[in-house]
Amino acid sequence: MLTSTRTTRIEWCHCDPAGIIFYPRYFDFFETSTIVLIERALEMSKSDYLRVYGFAGHPLVETRARFRQATRFGDEVAIETKLIECGRSSFKLEHRLTKAGALAVEASETRVWVINDADDPAHLKPQPIPPEVLARFGGERMLAREAGEGTGNTRQ
Amino acid sequence: MLTSTRTTRIEWCHCDPAGIIFYPRYFDFFETSTIVLIERALEMSKSDYLRVYGFAGHPLVETRARFRQATRFGDEVAIETKLIECGRSSFKLEHRLTKAGALAVEASETRVWVINDADDPAHLKPQPIPPEVLARFGGERMLAREAGEGTGNTRQ
Amino acid sequence: MLTSTRTTRIEWCHCDPAGIIFYPRYFDFFETSTIVLIERALEMSKSDYLRVYGFAGHPLVETRARFRQATRFGDEVAIETKLIECGRSSFKLEHRLTKAGALAVEASETRVWVINDADDPAHLKPQPIPPEVLARFGGERMLAREAGEGTGNTRQ
Amino acid sequence: MLTSTRTTRIEWCHCDPAGIIFYPRYFDFFETSTIVLIERALEMSKSDYLRVYGFAGHPLVETRARFRQATRFGDEVAIETKLIECGRSSFKLEHRLTKAGALAVEASETRVWVINDADDPAHLKPQPIPPEVLARFGGERMLAREAGEGTGNTRQ
Repeated sequence: MLTSTRTTRIEWCHCDPAGIIFYPRYFDFFETSTIVLIERALEMSKSDYLRVYGFAGHPLVETRARFRQATRFGDEVAIETKLIECGRSSFKLEHRLTKAGALAVEASETRVWVINDADDPAHLKPQPIPPEVLARFGGERMLAREAGEGTGNTRQ
Repeated sequence: MLTSTRTTRIEWCHCDPAGIIFYPRYFDFFETSTIVLIERALEMSKSDYLRVYGFAGHPLVETRARFRQATRFGDEVAIETKLIECGRSSFKLEHRLTKAGALAVEASETRVWVINDADDPAHLKPQPIPPEVLARFGGERMLAREAGEGTGNTRQ
Repeated sequence: MLTSTRTTRIEWCHCDPAGIIFYPRYFDFFETSTIVLIERALEMSKSDYLRVYGFAGHPLVETRARFRQATRFGDEVAIETKLIECGRSSFKLEHRLTKAGALAVEASETRVWVINDADDPAHLKPQPIPPEVLARFGGERMLAREAGEGTGNTRQ
Repeated sequence: MLTSTRTTRIEWCHCDPAGIIFYPRYFDFFETSTIVLIERALEMSKSDYLRVYGFAGHPLVETRARFRQATRFGDEVAIETKLIECGRSSFKLEHRLTKAGALAVEASETRVWVINDADDPAHLKPQPIPPEVLARFGGERMLAREAGEGTGNTRQ
C-alpha cells in the first residue's frame, strides 16, 4: 500500500486568535501530502504528471476529518498519508497527523481523476485512471477489491 | 431551528491552478457562516460573545463534506447554515453551498464549547454551554433529543 | 480617475494568535479590490475579461504598504481603490483601508498586463494594454502623463 | 549582521488560476522567515520568546516588495532573510527569494516591538526592545547607526 510521511511545523500564519491552528489549514497540509504521495508514486512532479497524463487534476468528492487534539504554532507534526482504495476513476486516501507520536487529526478523502469536458470547458468530468498510474497505485489489487466488495466511495 | 443564509463570491484568491476553488477555502467560508449564525442567535459579535461568556471558542471535533460540483472564480454562491443538534457542551451544524440554486457542497460539523484549562493553559477543555446560550440555540428541545436518542456526535 | 470602494469584515480566519489581522490577508483583500475595480471599468467579470482580451492576467511587479493601526476580527472596514497611473503595459493603483473613517492601511501597487510567452509557456511577458481597455482606464491622459514625466513604474 | 536562510517549495495551494504563486503567499513565507531568524537569534521558539519577554508580537508598520519573476507550483525556492537595522523599538529586515539562484522577489519590512496597552487592551503600543534581545540582534552597532543617521523607518 502506497504510504508517504512528511513533517511540517505549525506556523504563526496557520493559527487563529485562539492560538491554535485554524482547522482549514490542515486541509492545505493534506493537499500537499496527497501531491507528495502521488509524485513519489509516479516519480515526477505534479506539473509534470498533469502534463504527461493530460488530465486536469484530482479534486475531492468527499472528505471527513476528526480532530483529536489541538495543535499550536511552533508544534512539529508528522503527516502519514496512505492510498487505501483505488477505483476506475477515483481513489481514496487517509491522513494521520501526529504530534510527538500522539494522534491529533485523522482524515479520509475521496478524489476523482478528471479532464476538462471538451463540450463545456467550465465542466470537469471523470476519466479512467491511466493503466500505468493504476499499476503504480497498486491498482490491480485495488480494482479487484472494488469489484468484489462494491465500495461506495467511487462517486462519478 | 436556527438557520442563517449569506451570499459570497468565489474570488481569484480562493482558486487554484485548475481554475476552480481550492477546496479548503470552503471551510474558511463555513467558519465564517458558523460565526454569523451564532452572532445572530446571541445578538452580539464573536469578540463580544467570547468575552461575555468567558470561553475560548468552539473548535471542531469532526467535519464531513461532499463536493457535488466545482465552483470557479466569479461564481456567486449562497451558504445556508443550520444548527441541527445541541448537546451539553457540543453542537452540530450543517452547511449547504449552492450556485444558481444547485447544490455544490454540503457539509456537517460538530463543535465543542471550550475553555482554557486552568491547570494547563496549552490545553482546551469542554465546558457546558451556558443556559442562556442553550436557550437561544433552541436548547431544550435539542437536549431532549440528545437524551432520548443518544446521539454519538458529542465527543467530549 | 477610476475609483472603486467596497466594504468587508475582518473575519476570524484572517486573524492570528495576537488577535489582529495577519497582514498578508490585506493583500488578499487588495487583489479582490483591484479585480472589482477593473470589472467595473470594463463592465465584465474577470473570467470574461481574461477571455475577451486574451491575456494571462495582471500580476504585480511592485507593492508597498504602510500599516497605521491594527484591525481585529469583527471590524468592518472600507477599501477605496484608485487607478492612479497607466502606462503602455503597466498600471498603478492605490488602496486605502479605513476603519470607522480612520486610515488603517495604505498601499500602492504596480501591475503589468501579461500574456503567456508562445516560445516558453512557463514564462509571462508584458503586452500593450488594448486600446479599448486603455480608454476605459482613462488612458490618454494617463499615457500623456507617462510620456511627459517619465515615470519609473513600468518595469518590463 | 543576523542572517537566516531556509528553503521551501511553492505548493499547489499557493498558486492561482494563472498557475503562478498568488503573491500574498510570499508574505506568509516572509513572516515565517522572520520568525525563524528571531528564533535562531534568541535560541528559543516564538511561543517561548513571546512569553519570556512578555510582549504581544512584532507587527509590520511597513513593507515593500519587488517581484522580478514569477514562481510556479513545484518550484524549490530559497529565502534569505537579514536583519538590516534596529532601533529602540523597531527593526528592519530584508528578504531575498531566489529560484535556481536567480532573484524572484526582494522585500523589506519594518516591524515594531509591541505590548498590549494596559489602558486599552484592543490597542497595541510600541515598547523598547529588551537589552538582551538588542544584544542578540547586534544592537549597539545598530542603535549607533540609527542615532547617527536618523533613519525614518522607526514609526512609533
